[in-house]
Amino acid sequence: MSRAVILLSGGLDSATTLAIARAEGYECFALSCLYGQRHAAELEAARRIAGALGVAAHREIEIPIGQFGGSALTDDALAVPENGGKGIPITYVPARNTVLLSLALVWAEVLDADAIFIGVNAVDYSGYPDCRPDFIKAFQELVSVATKRTVEGAQITLEAPLIELSKAEIIERGSVLGVDYSLTVSCYQADHQGLACGRCDACRIRADGFKAAGIDDPTRYL
Amino acid sequence: MSRAVILLSGGLDSATTLAIARAEGYECFALSCLYGQRHAAELEAARRIAGALGVAAHREIEIPIGQFGGSALTDDALAVPENGGKGIPITYVPARNTVLLSLALVWAEVLDADAIFIGVNAVDYSGYPDCRPDFIKAFQELVSVATKRTVEGAQITLEAPLIELSKAEIIERGSVLGVDYSLTVSCYQADHQGLACGRCDACRIRADGFKAAGIDDPTRYL
Repeated sequence: MSRAVILLSGGLDSATTLAIARAEGYECFALSCLYGQRHAAELEAARRIAGALGVAAHREIEIPIGQFGGSALTDDALAVPENGGKGIPITYVPARNTVLLSLALVWAEVLDADAIFIGVNAVDYSGYPDCRPDFIKAFQELVSVATKRTVEGAQITLEAPLIELSKAEIIERGSVLGVDYSLTVSCYQADHQGLACGRCDACRIRADGFKAAGIDDPTRYL
Repeated sequence: MSRAVILLSGGLDSATTLAIARAEGYECFALSCLYGQRHAAELEAARRIAGALGVAAHREIEIPIGQFGGSALTDDALAVPENGGKGIPITYVPARNTVLLSLALVWAEVLDADAIFIGVNAVDYSGYPDCRPDFIKAFQELVSVATKRTVEGAQITLEAPLIELSKAEIIERGSVLGVDYSLTVSCYQADHQGLACGRCDACRIRADGFKAAGIDDPTRYL
């Protein structure tokens, strides 16, 4: 049975990604990273999702990159936006996905895993540089020269199955695979129980996704 | 004044790299990562070197990748080798330099830095996949698409000034720049005071380097 490391934040996208990896027949190893983000409630969600979807192992790793600042998601002095806006959003966390994938790569190499899954999405978050196909392609090139496993001939494939999907398409896909979205937390400022604000950009995009998919929104709001 | 982030382990190579970055006129921001390695004495050394060479700031970040295992440097159950050997050494830490560079990239982006310096060396450690020019080139390609700063037109250049140098050449270069190598720790199993074993591969390569350079070895041995 092939192994895969899945980056699992506890949000809607990564839960769907885990369900896809499982449906493709991988033995799934879920990795959750706590990087000083405000929405630590996501981690509780990640535990529930990992349990519900049945992973071989779930690891949590604390990476204190929040100390470097530069993002509304890790810096209490910056407000979380509630009305979209142009350009790269202030919720962008500098080089976040590069860090997350590098950590997944460590575990993938130790596990002799064949794949790493990440739930990035270029449609609804087009402003984030590290959610684009060009970024995934460049990281895949890096992987091929970066590890003992890949240099010796094996491959570790980077899978981003949601990258070209709309939020509605992601929700449809996950619903077919049995994902219980009431377990997931997307809100940038969820409270400690995981209740969503219903106002931030993440809440807005999520709610619009359920609406467009014609699926009842199970999100637990404040 | 251009800024640069320098990965500073406390070893001979990274101390020399910091001295080179300073000599090139950069305002230097030193980053030390504690990743569960046995040679934590290196971190004390990193503090002394950062102080001696005069950095704008020195950050230490704990990255618990040792929990994933797979290396003699992070796993007490694996012995540190003392007689070279063929292939990729057991002291290889899976995907380590990918993780270190990704963390440096976070800080570089927040600082609006123009460069990241890493003291990798392809000559004496030819067995490590992530110490080779191909790896550095692939990471540079990744950087160009991974961050807000680079996507918006600025560049963050990855500098690996030691990559083609022998250990003797590194020591000669650093000596000219005034590096006090008595402050550095290279030993894979240094004691808590930073005293070197004199037997492991790192000690052997270092001692041979001083000998080949014709420079007195200031290493403090047990």
